[in-house]
Amino acid sequence: MKDVIYPSFDDVIAAHDRIRPYIHRTPVLTSSYLNDLTGADLHFKCENFQKAGAFKVRGACNAVFGLPEDKLERGVATHSSGNHALSLSYAAGRRGIPCTVVMPRTAPEAKKAAVRGYGGRIVECEPSTSSREAVFEQVVAETGAEFVHPYNDLRVITGQATCSRELMEQVEGIEGIVAPIGGGGMISGTCLTVSSTAPDVKIYAAEPLNADDAARSFRAGHIIADDAPVTVADGLKVPLKENTWHYVSNHVTDILTATEDEIIAAMKLTWERMKIVIEPSCAVPLAVILKNPDVFAGKRIGVIITGGNVDMDKLPWFKG
Amino acid sequence: MKDVIYPSFDDVIAAHDRIRPYIHRTPVLTSSYLNDLTGADLHFKCENFQKAGAFKVRGACNAVFGLPEDKLERGVATHSSGNHALSLSYAAGRRGIPCTVVMPRTAPEAKKAAVRGYGGRIVECEPSTSSREAVFEQVVAETGAEFVHPYNDLRVITGQATCSRELMEQVEGIEGIVAPIGGGGMISGTCLTVSSTAPDVKIYAAEPLNADDAARSFRAGHIIADDAPVTVADGLKVPLKENTWHYVSNHVTDILTATEDEIIAAMKLTWERMKIVIEPSCAVPLAVILKNPDVFAGKRIGVIITGGNVDMDKLPWFKG
Repeated sequence: MKDVIYPSFDDVIAAHDRIRPYIHRTPVLTSSYLNDLTGADLHFKCENFQKAGAFKVRGACNAVFGLPEDKLERGVATHSSGNHALSLSYAAGRRGIPCTVVMPRTAPEAKKAAVRGYGGRIVECEPSTSSREAVFEQVVAETGAEFVHPYNDLRVITGQATCSRELMEQVEGIEGIVAPIGGGGMISGTCLTVSSTAPDVKIYAAEPLNADDAARSFRAGHIIADDAPVTVADGLKVPLKENTWHYVSNHVTDILTATEDEIIAAMKLTWERMKIVIEPSCAVPLAVILKNPDVFAGKRIGVIITGGNVDMDKLPWFKG
Repeated sequence: MKDVIYPSFDDVIAAHDRIRPYIHRTPVLTSSYLNDLTGADLHFKCENFQKAGAFKVRGACNAVFGLPEDKLERGVATHSSGNHALSLSYAAGRRGIPCTVVMPRTAPEAKKAAVRGYGGRIVECEPSTSSREAVFEQVVAETGAEFVHPYNDLRVITGQATCSRELMEQVEGIEGIVAPIGGGGMISGTCLTVSSTAPDVKIYAAEPLNADDAARSFRAGHIIADDAPVTVADGLKVPLKENTWHYVSNHVTDILTATEDEIIAAMKLTWERMKIVIEPSCAVPLAVILKNPDVFAGKRIGVIITGGNVDMDKLPWFKG
């Protein structure tokens, strides 16, 4: 295994300059109701308002717009549970290069339609890590496309790092940041920025109890991967990989979990009180904040709202 | 009938100064997707993010914080299909005076809970204008409270006028404004500001076809009132009254209507693409913009998103 050269904060600044024309500097919202309820001073970084509906466009744009000329013709390819698929399609569309995405056949229809809307080509797989990776190998063999992994790619992690860079600029005195964890791309980007610029800020990862492989990995000291966990937080089913494990194991303060009911309740509460559409995946941070008042009360906390791509015909608080 | 002295734009400025500590200067959002779809340059004034979840807090605060000392003890009372009830309760709570609201028993549970959360007292009536007004007379007789009508009150209209004042400050070069019309409070406030400060800007009222009494009034040249129209846009069931008719008849460019299906589709589209929670009532403007591209395409248009108080367990695109 070769030595990995991890990106520096200068690389984050360069990424930010590279992707700025293609992304939004998303707003930070507050809610006096949720502050009263939690006892914390919460600042929500609204990547649900981001281009393509999620933070993942940051990493995808950094990878696509950093591609050398000789790789453009064959385009890019990836596998993704949803938002990275949209984001890579968006980024490739903006650069005018081909993009193929392997998506679980169970992915929300709204996400599939949006991928096609941005010009991406979809190849379907079964909803498990093993099927996704097998189908993807075929796609790369056929197209010769540049693989942009949804999270285990340092170009992607460096792009995601621009999100917490903006948050730290937008809100003074942040004492902790809470973000969801699936494969660990957003958390790794957060670690990259925070460890370089504000090492005293605590970093909490929020994970569904039903897909708590990152929490178990964190406690065990090595990567534990589940193949096909079942959770409403469909963006958080994927396992850590070596690059994200580097950041998680070195810089994360703690990984906290929430049940499916707690996640759905936090999602509905956010819709009702903040009037914003957020995905189940990004309700996990609020769920763990509500569950652990001793950790968060009295502190100024940044919360990453990672995305807002929801299938409106399948809301989790409607049964059947 | 005595002569009415209508407010001036100086009164709007005074109202704005009076209510500013109690309201948000709400953001204006854009959507490249909706611009592409409509051919217009749309700027959404997001009063769904307003205190108490709707623009109505502007008018309610202006009435409550303008009350003379000798009227404070008996408090305020009103009847409302929902958001004015919340807003008056919020404003009264901030000033520390009693508030009684007559609400239809069919009003969304979320709105009733929020009224109580702000400290308001609810008296229920049947869902018709006649029942509402009868029950309300009793309440005023019993409490001696100051009546703050949800829209036919010049203090309220002057408060609502601060919304389009902000919009005109936030977006340069607006050529038209579209707002929903029920009783006409928001539209009247828009007329008050726009006729004083930018008389060339066109004002379009958007109304459910199922509750099109304002459109019929506009064409007939006098007020036509329906008693209990049935529409998903539950904030827009009430009829015009003499003060709002003054503004509508003198300053509105046109009143456009949309069917129930068109309203629900525009609401769902806004949730999906803009990632914001809006009420059915404030989806009517987007519905009429989508329906009348000849009127709006190529123009810079302000759209008032009037509120975001939605019962998440009763979304109109779920049947049954």
